[in-house]
Amino acid sequence: MSDPLFIKAEVFRPFAIQVLERVGLAAPHAVDTAEVLIWTSLRGIDTHGVRNLSPYYVHGVLDGIIDPKGGFSIDSETPLAARTNGHAGPGLAAACWSMRLALDKAEKGGMGFVTMRNSNHLGAAGYYAHMAAERDMIGMCMTGYLFSQPPATGVLPLGGMDPLLSTNPIAVAVPGAEEPAFVLDMATSASPYNRIELFAELGKPIPLGWGLDENHQPCTDPASVKYLLPLGGTRELGGHKGFGLAMVVHFLTGALSGAFCANPDPSKVIQNDEGAQVEDSGYAQEGVAHFFAAMRIDQFGQVEEFKRAVDQTIRLMRSSTPEPGLEQVYVAGEIEHATARERRRTGIPIPAKVAADLRALSTIYEVPLELISRA
Amino acid sequence: MSDPLFIKAEVFRPFAIQVLERVGLAAPHAVDTAEVLIWTSLRGIDTHGVRNLSPYYVHGVLDGIIDPKGGFSIDSETPLAARTNGHAGPGLAAACWSMRLALDKAEKGGMGFVTMRNSNHLGAAGYYAHMAAERDMIGMCMTGYLFSQPPATGVLPLGGMDPLLSTNPIAVAVPGAEEPAFVLDMATSASPYNRIELFAELGKPIPLGWGLDENHQPCTDPASVKYLLPLGGTRELGGHKGFGLAMVVHFLTGALSGAFCANPDPSKVIQNDEGAQVEDSGYAQEGVAHFFAAMRIDQFGQVEEFKRAVDQTIRLMRSSTPEPGLEQVYVAGEIEHATARERRRTGIPIPAKVAADLRALSTIYEVPLELISRA
Repeated sequence: MSDPLFIKAEVFRPFAIQVLERVGLAAPHAVDTAEVLIWTSLRGIDTHGVRNLSPYYVHGVLDGIIDPKGGFSIDSETPLAARTNGHAGPGLAAACWSMRLALDKAEKGGMGFVTMRNSNHLGAAGYYAHMAAERDMIGMCMTGYLFSQPPATGVLPLGGMDPLLSTNPIAVAVPGAEEPAFVLDMATSASPYNRIELFAELGKPIPLGWGLDENHQPCTDPASVKYLLPLGGTRELGGHKGFGLAMVVHFLTGALSGAFCANPDPSKVIQNDEGAQVEDSGYAQEGVAHFFAAMRIDQFGQVEEFKRAVDQTIRLMRSSTPEPGLEQVYVAGEIEHATARERRRTGIPIPAKVAADLRALSTIYEVPLELISRA
Repeated sequence: MSDPLFIKAEVFRPFAIQVLERVGLAAPHAVDTAEVLIWTSLRGIDTHGVRNLSPYYVHGVLDGIIDPKGGFSIDSETPLAARTNGHAGPGLAAACWSMRLALDKAEKGGMGFVTMRNSNHLGAAGYYAHMAAERDMIGMCMTGYLFSQPPATGVLPLGGMDPLLSTNPIAVAVPGAEEPAFVLDMATSASPYNRIELFAELGKPIPLGWGLDENHQPCTDPASVKYLLPLGGTRELGGHKGFGLAMVVHFLTGALSGAFCANPDPSKVIQNDEGAQVEDSGYAQEGVAHFFAAMRIDQFGQVEEFKRAVDQTIRLMRSSTPEPGLEQVYVAGEIEHATARERRRTGIPIPAKVAADLRALSTIYEVPLELISRA
């Protein structure tokens, strides 16, 4: 393999904004989308960052999945909660908009909760949870999709053969005082789907336990994976827990938002390769659904006391004995924070496939692009 | 093994209440404790039910861990949230009291959140989440303990050698319309500790992946387990997710409640076999801490619409294709609901060890006990 290329965050930002505007996104939506992708890639979450600009978001518009002109609206609300509609618009901007609504409600009323239907892929759920941590709140974000008929690829319920679930991630962020925020962002499947895609792009085998092939046999070839396994894997090792968490995500996203309903707009139901029939189960899901929560820490006591306890917890883990061969115990968000500091300096490493995607966007949309070949 | 014995719920209730009163619990606390244990055992969660009356709750009082006269109080509150103190009292009653406070807040204000410090073991976290589902709310309960020094037995952080965590369970309950409530109740470790105890009592080996022995080697002898593994196990298979969820539980319980603090009451810090030193890390945890949440569904839309979507989700899973040899896909709470219907009729099965424990309580506290030998 040749030396990797890099892109600086400050180069990617205007590039992505201009490309997204040229495919039709409103300027603020393009800005939000670029910002989420940069944050994600700086933190080393390469599965969900700049890699996805072309295949997920630009091609999402070109393929008619994302309506670039989609606005966002409130279906109903109370001082603490809202149900919103993404109108099949750009998911990352829709999620920023909904999380800001949750934060505003929390700022005024102490707590804020927003559930959104009819949206699209939102990227790294941790970004939205982290927005709360930046404002001294505990943040949460979930996103999910429940198929009423098994799609081409999806996550199996424990004990089932039909991949009815999406990877339904959960993110939680908690602010520290001097320590960087704790940010957990986890698929409720053993692996997120785009990590399997990434292994395929890198030509690497995946570990046993992530997925099954079309014959429901465990496999290590990322190209052969048709079924993803829930976190925990077998019942003995807790597969019912991964499945159960995925169901919680569905209830708070799909069910609570009204996305999973008896009479969805068929054009907004994600189809499988053979074309899912809504009628068979009676219910189907309209677009991707999200859930956002913001809880003000000062509702429970002194913010500084809490943040010091968070710091102390992180330091307790860090100073505990690591396994032989490991440097230290890392808590969620710790490596990501260090990676961001490094990548702000070096730029974001870009595998060949992503570089090719970005160069194609540069050519098609006539937006200049500067990649650098040494960090 | 001889035929198992059974105890009827309506026999266990007055028996447990009288025994608990005789060890010093106030009548309402004894009633709550008995009710939680019955609900748990009826639902087949034998690790957390009547089995624990003697070793956890009666002996908890005799050993000075539980203050039977402990009252519960509110440290601080807002219309939506409270921080409460269990005063080292009986954990199951303390948890009922705190969850009722969360429910009352939600009833009045739409949402209710309570974090409690200085409590004790609360039994099955699912019970408290289920209290919300019975009132058309989404309920959540977490309970946790963070050791500032490794105890004799505990859960390892991913990549660490020191068992700093407890099994830190998460429970979520969601009401259905005609279907029974979805009730997820899961340790964030691969297995809860008392399931390992139960295997030891039954003389059965445990699966590989639950725990390590004193040399940090995987083991199947339940008596040899010294370290529990996080849900997911290895990093490849998601051990960082189990660890991350355990940390979330700690932040919402120990940190938010003030249990994990710089100057705890040393008499309320759980000691390891060698006697944990609070001073070493600067921080330690005062008693077990809990978190309770109640979210009114009508804050987001129509309750009936949501409950119908929950029903339809459960039915979709149930009608999906099961793995060969399995009857169906079960969602969390489904088997438990069916078991409760059965056990209300047959009584709760009691292994020999538990029967001996209950008979000893009957003798010591002079409370009559009727076990039956056929279901």
